[in-house]
Amino acid sequence: MTQTDPTSIRVAVSTVIVALRPHPDTGAPALWMPLVRRVTAPFEGSWALPGGWVGPDEGLEDSAAARLRETTNVQPRYLEQLYAFGDVDRSPSRVVSIVYWALVHPDEADSVPDDWNVRWFLADEHPQLAFDHDRIVEYALWRLRNKVSYSRIAQAFLGDRFTLAELRGVYEAVLGRTLDPANFRRQVAQGDAVLATDETTSGDRHRPARLYRSNPDLAYADNGPLTPPTRQERPCPSR
Amino acid sequence: MTQTDPTSIRVAVSTVIVALRPHPDTGAPALWMPLVRRVTAPFEGSWALPGGWVGPDEGLEDSAAARLRETTNVQPRYLEQLYAFGDVDRSPSRVVSIVYWALVHPDEADSVPDDWNVRWFLADEHPQLAFDHDRIVEYALWRLRNKVSYSRIAQAFLGDRFTLAELRGVYEAVLGRTLDPANFRRQVAQGDAVLATDETTSGDRHRPARLYRSNPDLAYADNGPLTPPTRQERPCPSR
Repeated sequence: MTQTDPTSIRVAVSTVIVALRPHPDTGAPALWMPLVRRVTAPFEGSWALPGGWVGPDEGLEDSAAARLRETTNVQPRYLEQLYAFGDVDRSPSRVVSIVYWALVHPDEADSVPDDWNVRWFLADEHPQLAFDHDRIVEYALWRLRNKVSYSRIAQAFLGDRFTLAELRGVYEAVLGRTLDPANFRRQVAQGDAVLATDETTSGDRHRPARLYRSNPDLAYADNGPLTPPTRQERPCPSR
Repeated sequence: MTQTDPTSIRVAVSTVIVALRPHPDTGAPALWMPLVRRVTAPFEGSWALPGGWVGPDEGLEDSAAARLRETTNVQPRYLEQLYAFGDVDRSPSRVVSIVYWALVHPDEADSVPDDWNVRWFLADEHPQLAFDHDRIVEYALWRLRNKVSYSRIAQAFLGDRFTLAELRGVYEAVLGRTLDPANFRRQVAQGDAVLATDETTSGDRHRPARLYRSNPDLAYADNGPLTPPTRQERPCPSR
């Protein structure tokens, strides 16, 4: 074991929050994320991912949840560890950032203030970010596009009940392209990630549409032996 | 941002190395990993994953490669970041460990000394490890069983050319169960991860068997925008 002094490295957490909101031009569902304006050097005035230092008595996920709540007021049900970023030159001082991500429901997203310090940006059209946060966001979006399964994406972005059109909107937003409704319906029917219910939309203006729900037997977080309890189950999520 | 003092947290790297070697009882391919005996407190005398502190001028992956070479003499072609472990009580002092993993060829594995300080253990039958390393190994094996694709597992554990029986041996070792040869052959033929060559084994004692190779178009490391160059391409892999 090399006996260098490891205390010159500081440990931080950051979180990429992604929510589905209408695109300002098209009105179609699009991926948005809240960013925080930095008020101190380095990168003062730049936008950055919400985060901060890991406290000496905080676990990594609890720390990510606490810094996220403090900076953006978001308290997501699920946080998933994305990657640890630790390049030597990613910050003027040496910082290793453990990055989490969360896909949040619209009601969770609504708790974020949209003001001078915190603002929602289209995930594909954000300004240049502080540190290596552009690279982190690029990686997070790549992971989202490659790794989410039908079940997880439905549970993450939508409510308990949703129509197939709403579910297709999620996929179109994530994949960045339109999907054929008939093919999409067929693919959903072939899988077991999403289950039809007996309920329909009220249909004031449109024909009532059947409501679906996520299959509760499929876990949201694909983390095997490390899967933590959901945040609601914790008496005190961030200590 | 909370202004706690983050310098009381130290950053370490550990690596889970997995290689395929014959099971001592059956002779069938099995998963083995090299462990390192700790010579200092805490957990003096216990076996642990190879690793050590991150140097102030080392990136995380370079650090993992350097500590691995120093402790076990292994220089794997690929290291992949597995997870950051940072529970408050995982060590007597506060340590965040960035854990990497690598699947290595037999020739890479042969460079590891098997002596008092470093020893190969069957992955499923290792002694109780220091710190939270049992949990880390459990997570790594779960990831291995869930996430490897045909292509990656072939490239990682076997040489440039391999028979279908050898490939099936890899899968049987990873999955911990025997597979039907005819079904396995059919599944391989349906995918594009493994390609037949014109070559065969020499077949001194057995009927010559066709040799296969991994499809080079399928990337080994599924890391998207973060995929690093392979270690051989680097002029100085660990600085």
